[in-house]
Amino acid sequence: MNKKKKPFVMLTNDDGIASPGLLALRQSFKHQYEVVIVAPATEMSAVGHAITLSDPLRVFDYSRNGEFYGYAVKGTPADCVKIGYWAILKRKPDIVISGINIGPNTGINTIYSGTVSAATEGAILGVPSFAISLGTFHNPDFTYAAKFARKLADMLLKKGLPKDVFLNVNIPACQEKKIRGVAITRQGSALYREDFDKRIDPHGRTYYWLTGQKLNKESSIEYDDGAIDQNMVSITPIHYDLTCYDFLEPLRAWKLS
Amino acid sequence: MNKKKKPFVMLTNDDGIASPGLLALRQSFKHQYEVVIVAPATEMSAVGHAITLSDPLRVFDYSRNGEFYGYAVKGTPADCVKIGYWAILKRKPDIVISGINIGPNTGINTIYSGTVSAATEGAILGVPSFAISLGTFHNPDFTYAAKFARKLADMLLKKGLPKDVFLNVNIPACQEKKIRGVAITRQGSALYREDFDKRIDPHGRTYYWLTGQKLNKESSIEYDDGAIDQNMVSITPIHYDLTCYDFLEPLRAWKLS
Repeated sequence: MNKKKKPFVMLTNDDGIASPGLLALRQSFKHQYEVVIVAPATEMSAVGHAITLSDPLRVFDYSRNGEFYGYAVKGTPADCVKIGYWAILKRKPDIVISGINIGPNTGINTIYSGTVSAATEGAILGVPSFAISLGTFHNPDFTYAAKFARKLADMLLKKGLPKDVFLNVNIPACQEKKIRGVAITRQGSALYREDFDKRIDPHGRTYYWLTGQKLNKESSIEYDDGAIDQNMVSITPIHYDLTCYDFLEPLRAWKLS
Repeated sequence: MNKKKKPFVMLTNDDGIASPGLLALRQSFKHQYEVVIVAPATEMSAVGHAITLSDPLRVFDYSRNGEFYGYAVKGTPADCVKIGYWAILKRKPDIVISGINIGPNTGINTIYSGTVSAATEGAILGVPSFAISLGTFHNPDFTYAAKFARKLADMLLKKGLPKDVFLNVNIPACQEKKIRGVAITRQGSALYREDFDKRIDPHGRTYYWLTGQKLNKESSIEYDDGAIDQNMVSITPIHYDLTCYDFLEPLRAWKLS
């Protein structure tokens, strides 16, 4: 046994095991950490906190350049963390990281995000966890995000996190030298103006594409959207107790019994 | 135009448009309310807050006993509410109800529940909404739950709900006369001891079934699980701002910039 054991990280994502964002994370961690990848076999964006109950899960060894790279799961990001933890890994990970997602996971997108759901699952299992996303869909450069992930992981191992809490990290897509620091933020509340683009297929049948545009994004760095728009790294502490405590007493006054 | 217009309810669920739980809701509302059903074409349990971005959505008219019954969507519960609101309904619903789910949606299941995600989507759209679930998977009798849903809907129309808040209702599976009243509750924090049942298929390949058991459920009626276990209707006010406000300041003290 090593005198000084490397910390053990489980990496996952929702863009799928072949994503360059996951590779960037792995490259950043592979020397100082023991890394295990358990990631969806295919892209799983906007799956929310889905888990697979009605179908069997399958796991495959996934190779890259002729070498074992990680476990590919035919399932969701939450499935990956669960099956990694309970069935694949020989010991409990010290940390779970989900990403680096291509595209931000801010504001209302937090609740649709498979990337975030994987970190939620890590927190449920009692492991310090974070989700990390890059604020662009075009020509993503993961260099800074991957470096920041390492720095944050080192810190999490030292500091820990409160029970049931994890971090949702969003990295602005600007050049590294333009990044203005880190903002600890709250989830933005901007909503989408949604549209369903109605079309007719070649067989004469109707179908719809969901499209949308985020309206009235908060510009303050108090919010996740505002922070990355101002070239700051956004870190939002997230929990999965959805109770609205402020409304318990008013609701009791309705006297529904 | 009617002098007194009926309130307009959009019904959905995650068990699929053919579910008897949805039918029970519809029967309970059809006289006093104008009812539109927009529900998944097939069962969609544990899909979390998934939305369909990478595939086109299709909508079909669904008939029952030779009459139009509702719109069946090849998508998730959240898709149904979105496409109902933005593309199918001619006017904004006064209320969105998701259910009656077969099986409880309490504690950590709240975050995996398609039923709950549909009510979340209603709240995001600014419509008073609730999810309603029955605490059994076996021989469900929806009579009381459907009646309670009507009573609650009538009340919501009068009282409204705070912005971004909706209700998660769980009905105990006991006989109506044994129900002891309504408890306004918080989301339970009991976790699952999960197992992946590993099997070999007839072709020699490994697959896994996720199974699990909720451990250490809270017994107090302060919690959703505890309430229905004690034959009380549980109503939990839910919001979708996942920020853990208590951890903002401690995290700022990490000085990550």
